[in-house]
Amino acid sequence: MNETPGAGVLLRLLLDGRPRTRAELIELSGLARSTVAGRVDALLASGLVVPSGEAASTGGRPPARFAFNPSARVVLAADAGATHLTVGLTDLSGRVLGSTTAALDIAEGPDRVLGAIASSGRDLLGRAGRAAADLAGTGVGLPGPVEHSTGRPNHPPIMPGWDEYDVVGHLTAELGGRVLVDNDVNIMALGEYATAYADARHLMFVKVATGIGAGIISDGRLHRGAQGAAGDLGHVQTPSGSDVMCRCGNTGCLEAIASAAAVAERLRAQGIEAAGSADVVGLVRAGNVPAANAVRQAGREIGAVLAACVSLLNPSVIVIGGSLAQAGDSLLAGVREVVYGRSLPLATTDLRIVTSRTGADAGVIGAATMVIQHVLSGAQI
Amino acid sequence: MNETPGAGVLLRLLLDGRPRTRAELIELSGLARSTVAGRVDALLASGLVVPSGEAASTGGRPPARFAFNPSARVVLAADAGATHLTVGLTDLSGRVLGSTTAALDIAEGPDRVLGAIASSGRDLLGRAGRAAADLAGTGVGLPGPVEHSTGRPNHPPIMPGWDEYDVVGHLTAELGGRVLVDNDVNIMALGEYATAYADARHLMFVKVATGIGAGIISDGRLHRGAQGAAGDLGHVQTPSGSDVMCRCGNTGCLEAIASAAAVAERLRAQGIEAAGSADVVGLVRAGNVPAANAVRQAGREIGAVLAACVSLLNPSVIVIGGSLAQAGDSLLAGVREVVYGRSLPLATTDLRIVTSRTGADAGVIGAATMVIQHVLSGAQI
Repeated sequence: MNETPGAGVLLRLLLDGRPRTRAELIELSGLARSTVAGRVDALLASGLVVPSGEAASTGGRPPARFAFNPSARVVLAADAGATHLTVGLTDLSGRVLGSTTAALDIAEGPDRVLGAIASSGRDLLGRAGRAAADLAGTGVGLPGPVEHSTGRPNHPPIMPGWDEYDVVGHLTAELGGRVLVDNDVNIMALGEYATAYADARHLMFVKVATGIGAGIISDGRLHRGAQGAAGDLGHVQTPSGSDVMCRCGNTGCLEAIASAAAVAERLRAQGIEAAGSADVVGLVRAGNVPAANAVRQAGREIGAVLAACVSLLNPSVIVIGGSLAQAGDSLLAGVREVVYGRSLPLATTDLRIVTSRTGADAGVIGAATMVIQHVLSGAQI
Repeated sequence: MNETPGAGVLLRLLLDGRPRTRAELIELSGLARSTVAGRVDALLASGLVVPSGEAASTGGRPPARFAFNPSARVVLAADAGATHLTVGLTDLSGRVLGSTTAALDIAEGPDRVLGAIASSGRDLLGRAGRAAADLAGTGVGLPGPVEHSTGRPNHPPIMPGWDEYDVVGHLTAELGGRVLVDNDVNIMALGEYATAYADARHLMFVKVATGIGAGIISDGRLHRGAQGAAGDLGHVQTPSGSDVMCRCGNTGCLEAIASAAAVAERLRAQGIEAAGSADVVGLVRAGNVPAANAVRQAGREIGAVLAACVSLLNPSVIVIGGSLAQAGDSLLAGVREVVYGRSLPLATTDLRIVTSRTGADAGVIGAATMVIQHVLSGAQI
């Protein structure tokens, strides 16, 4: 990027919202006076920083103060699930300015899905009265493993046509600006962490829907793993010793026993009509006892695997999200029952197990957070 | 610490071993000329940086070059296991200048064990001809959960008398300088990572001895968890559905089935004399087939839990260490058999499962690494 060193430092100093003078920025950063002067001018020119009144003077002309301006730029955030696409527009504080959602199958391939992201994005920009030049970047969550450094999907099981596809190149050509891509559950973890639990440092977000996956925040940062495949809870073998065959070819995988699809199948075996997670959630909410029992049992199976995660990672918050989490408290109750029963006391003393606060917006908020953190780290100024 | 900003920055720029001029340091750091001049003078006065020849001149007096000096300070590193204490002295590159080891039960309590660390430390300093003022810091590994920020053990199960003990205060009073404390397996993970796999970014170190535990390197940093209890593999429930009772009160814990103690017990049940891991290792090395089989089976049980860890964390290296890992290839073979059979292909494509390279020195090297990283981050200059 050929950046002058220190640009990100100055902007980070202003992120707490407190206006500061040049002299304060020099003292706080330890940077040379000339460096600070040059970077403040560049930040003012970019609009990311604006004048914000004057400081009290010790004599002579009072020194100018500068503050961070979150509306200087906007961010597009796309959450592409297995069967839906949501696109949102936010400012640099993560405030959602507009969003649009529609049914769309990820298996229709990158041309169709990325085309829809680009056209929805242009539409949202237009409706908000913002120019393409105002776009700081676009964040995309995809339902499969993604190599974050390149933004390319890495052998994603439910995304035919996407393996190694150049998502960044495609969207950069359509929208301009910086494009960042990650796994959808990683992005939900990031959104939930930034929105509700920034003090927690160690958080797991568990998505329970058609599949089961987790996003891991380790000491405030996403743990993506060597191939971007971390958090693949769905194919962990459950301790219950089940011999149910999974679509991956192994037996006893958590996803084959406790996903929304597995719960629906169990209900159908009892003669109850349930095609997928929406039906299961509807049944539980309508007071159907077998459905509530099946969801609670799924929670127990998930809890048995999460107990191992608690021993391994010692998180302070586990957030349960995804469509099946919308089935009231049954899922959460099953998870809690087993995790608290099975884990060592030290690791659960301060452990909170909760349902997602960002809910259906988790993906969009997380994708925006990913871009905002990148922009504000100074790499994009 | 009331540090001038930028001290750590300059030192980090010199850590690659390449001597640099003041002008190069100004350009690389973006710091003010006066800041660089002041910090170089302070680093020269501390001895951490030394003059290192002159650069080619474009006319006039050739500018001086400066280089990092790893022998400017020494580090004490203590590895306190359940039944042994090893203390080493290293320079700032981690080179071991001397070490001493002896049987010592951690259950003898903090006064006895920390007293032994201090007296061994003073002895090593004296033999190396170094003064107390040369000591950059002391690193200590303890066999239980430690709250790293305070250095206090946190409900350690095999360390009576140590809970919440002020290890840092005790050793600071005896030795001076900075004292850092962590769990022994975390420290081994750090040592193995820094010594042999710094390019890997995501590493798990699994210690198989009287107990079983893991240290996790996430994107180059130790993952300690909310209470410093991360990596507690020993009490994860194995998928084999065992109902063996563990000392923790649960059934089917990995440690109750696959630790050196469990293997020795299994051999005794077959009429083979084996008191602990040393006997088991001796039997396997002597070609005892039941012992080799029992160790391999322990490896399979550990592998079943590590397969879940691979799905969750997607590491690129799993290092098997601890006393039972010294039983040749049987343990490693069992681990590999199950991990490669059970994990998804994406997560194992580039996964290496290896035995520890640092071996019995892992603890000392890791404790020294912890201190050196802290010192060179600039907090202690």
